[in-house]
Amino acid sequence: MADAKPEISFIGLGAMGFGMATNLVKQGYKVTGFDVWQPTLDRFQATGGSIATTPAEAVKDKDYCVCMVATAQQAQSVIIEGDNAALSSLPKGATLLLCSTVPCAYVQGLEKQLTYLERGDIRLIDAPVSGGAARAADGTLSIMAGGSDEALEKGRFLLQEMSDPKKLYIVQGGVGAGSNMKMCHQVLAANQILAASEGLGFASHLGLDLHSASQEIIKSDAWAWMFENRLPRMLDPEFKPVASALTIILKDTSIITSEARRAAFPTPMTNTAEQVYFSGLGRGYGPDDDSSLIRLYTEGKGKIGPVKGLAENDESKLALVKALLRGIYLCSAAETIAFAKRCNLDLDQVFELCINAAGGSAILQTVGPEIIKLARGEQISVGDSQGLKEHAQQLQEAIEEAQRLKVPVYLGSQALTLTQFALQFSSEAVGNVPRAAVARVWGI
Amino acid sequence: MADAKPEISFIGLGAMGFGMATNLVKQGYKVTGFDVWQPTLDRFQATGGSIATTPAEAVKDKDYCVCMVATAQQAQSVIIEGDNAALSSLPKGATLLLCSTVPCAYVQGLEKQLTYLERGDIRLIDAPVSGGAARAADGTLSIMAGGSDEALEKGRFLLQEMSDPKKLYIVQGGVGAGSNMKMCHQVLAANQILAASEGLGFASHLGLDLHSASQEIIKSDAWAWMFENRLPRMLDPEFKPVASALTIILKDTSIITSEARRAAFPTPMTNTAEQVYFSGLGRGYGPDDDSSLIRLYTEGKGKIGPVKGLAENDESKLALVKALLRGIYLCSAAETIAFAKRCNLDLDQVFELCINAAGGSAILQTVGPEIIKLARGEQISVGDSQGLKEHAQQLQEAIEEAQRLKVPVYLGSQALTLTQFALQFSSEAVGNVPRAAVARVWGI
Repeated sequence: MADAKPEISFIGLGAMGFGMATNLVKQGYKVTGFDVWQPTLDRFQATGGSIATTPAEAVKDKDYCVCMVATAQQAQSVIIEGDNAALSSLPKGATLLLCSTVPCAYVQGLEKQLTYLERGDIRLIDAPVSGGAARAADGTLSIMAGGSDEALEKGRFLLQEMSDPKKLYIVQGGVGAGSNMKMCHQVLAANQILAASEGLGFASHLGLDLHSASQEIIKSDAWAWMFENRLPRMLDPEFKPVASALTIILKDTSIITSEARRAAFPTPMTNTAEQVYFSGLGRGYGPDDDSSLIRLYTEGKGKIGPVKGLAENDESKLALVKALLRGIYLCSAAETIAFAKRCNLDLDQVFELCINAAGGSAILQTVGPEIIKLARGEQISVGDSQGLKEHAQQLQEAIEEAQRLKVPVYLGSQALTLTQFALQFSSEAVGNVPRAAVARVWGI
Repeated sequence: MADAKPEISFIGLGAMGFGMATNLVKQGYKVTGFDVWQPTLDRFQATGGSIATTPAEAVKDKDYCVCMVATAQQAQSVIIEGDNAALSSLPKGATLLLCSTVPCAYVQGLEKQLTYLERGDIRLIDAPVSGGAARAADGTLSIMAGGSDEALEKGRFLLQEMSDPKKLYIVQGGVGAGSNMKMCHQVLAANQILAASEGLGFASHLGLDLHSASQEIIKSDAWAWMFENRLPRMLDPEFKPVASALTIILKDTSIITSEARRAAFPTPMTNTAEQVYFSGLGRGYGPDDDSSLIRLYTEGKGKIGPVKGLAENDESKLALVKALLRGIYLCSAAETIAFAKRCNLDLDQVFELCINAAGGSAILQTVGPEIIKLARGEQISVGDSQGLKEHAQQLQEAIEEAQRLKVPVYLGSQALTLTQFALQFSSEAVGNVPRAAVARVWGI
């Protein structure tokens, strides 16, 4: 393999796929790309790639195929159902990496379809990625890969070419496990992208200076990767540059909620985020950067008549914003870990992935391991850290101030409800209740 | 009393107060009115009332005072704290009816303030009303009155003059009980006003003819008083006439959620409605009729790219809308009854009030008595009626279709989450689970 690198076909040369495919070209592979958008093919050819005019033509005689289209519908079309779909031309025993973010249900169904179509010889790897276009082009993505041992063995070199060595997660559980892993990470993403807008929108209504307040937040236990990452664009009057459109996170959000319904597993936080995302879409914000959702929170400022909060100085106002964010992050963490447990994922691996990726938060770092202990039936104690009652009290004060200022706090309000439920379940407990116990709402 | 009708002072001549006060004039009482808005005083004088320039002047030498200002803050000002407040001039042993909708906490605090201020002689009646301006002027309001036996005895004739005899509810529990009763009714109002917009907005995205679909809904088990009442204005392109502004229901909604937090009682449905109301306020819809919130659901129609639902004909689309509405109404009913139980109200009386008032729905009529049985620890069976699992399945299909159409369904989504929680609690139950069991989420 080191001497004669195998030929690769690459279907789907969008923002991510283009970077991934050109990286493989740079690494010395002969890559034949396909996309429906001719200018992209021309660009790919200019970087040294070969091109094909149909998926079938692209995959012909190549033992490896990477598919990086946008949706499950597109994957179904280019692999199985569309004109000149790949399937009939895929060589016997070919390795197929589906890197698109799709529902677990889809990729498991794809595996079954291959069997029914008498193409069980194809080695399918379910390998969604995360990390953005720049890391795609660098070959330093995070990849969560599931499949048979044989398929993973065959495809490992490709996974390694595309990923950061520390961020290649081989997920136990076969095809679908990679998609489930990515989905659970996206629970954090879906909630924490919106939390950034909700938190900074609340700060705006409180009258805080957003630049200095947000720097304080980033240094505090209310830090989250998404808040820090979205901050410059939230503060830009035009929410530019567009780094990740609302439609992107909405697609992932809908995968979470539909898979959760399929499992009869409640995802109250993500459901709430999804409704707000739909409202943003209805406002025409779909193509805009997701940081622009702060508009949904700030648009009423100064136009809703006289309102007066109780917080009198910047310190107490900042404390309210942080309490709101911590409240959301705690419930996001609990929803993520509980859902990962339901999906039979290795919770230590989920934690490691999330804490080192876009789902990271200081709350996840602190409380996540405790939630995982609870999920395993181990005992935990509140120790010296903040208890759930104090946490709830601080969140409640934030929600009350938001009510006085007449600003919506969709996620914060939902988080308080869930925290109240958790405290009711724990009413018989002696002494203080640890924060991780909020996860009892999700059946942990 | 029949021969010499007592003099009445009346503070607060807004839309409701003006009608109530002029009705008392028509009934032959000498009524002295006060309001901060001079043109209103002139109008009141023209109908035969007397007028005063301060609260203190209005109440002087009158054994009865009705206070019908808009908020607790205003009540505190005109009765206790403001310039020329009523308190110092109220005769010894006067009867004071506070008819404003205020938090229970406020009116109970007012009772304490009177004691501390050595005016425990004043007979305070907590008597919020409902029914709108027309019924105020007719003397056929619904009134929910709490107070000491002595105060209620003294004030009964006034309560009777202002109310429909079938809709005067003397609520056990002293001062505060009337406010709690009204608050619990408003849980239904807060949710079902928004449900009307959410349901018809969903119908619009489904492509249903809204006129015929809504007539079908009104005839069905998805009927609610609020839907029928708001319908003409939802269908009017300008949402006219303004019968009840968004700011009005938002005020009541915030009373519910703040009182619920004070009791550490979760109100997930009303919390959700409140956030959407705040978003409407931020859009500048505060003074508009609350039926105009349908705009928050329909604004994206046709502008969010290609979407396609699964429902193929009008019958199946209508079934989805009805399932959405029933799902919301069931959780509204459970939240209402559970909160009423927490407030130690007589649940039969709550039911009688709600079913005959603006909170009524076909679901409340059917399932409400079963929830009340559960609240009393009585056994219920699913019998021949629909079970919770089937109810949840139908609601889930509606939520899934809304997701395909990319339309927000804030209340429906929350209702599904709560129904899922309830089914988890009931997972050990043998056989079918009755719909009323959804109330277990609220600790019933």
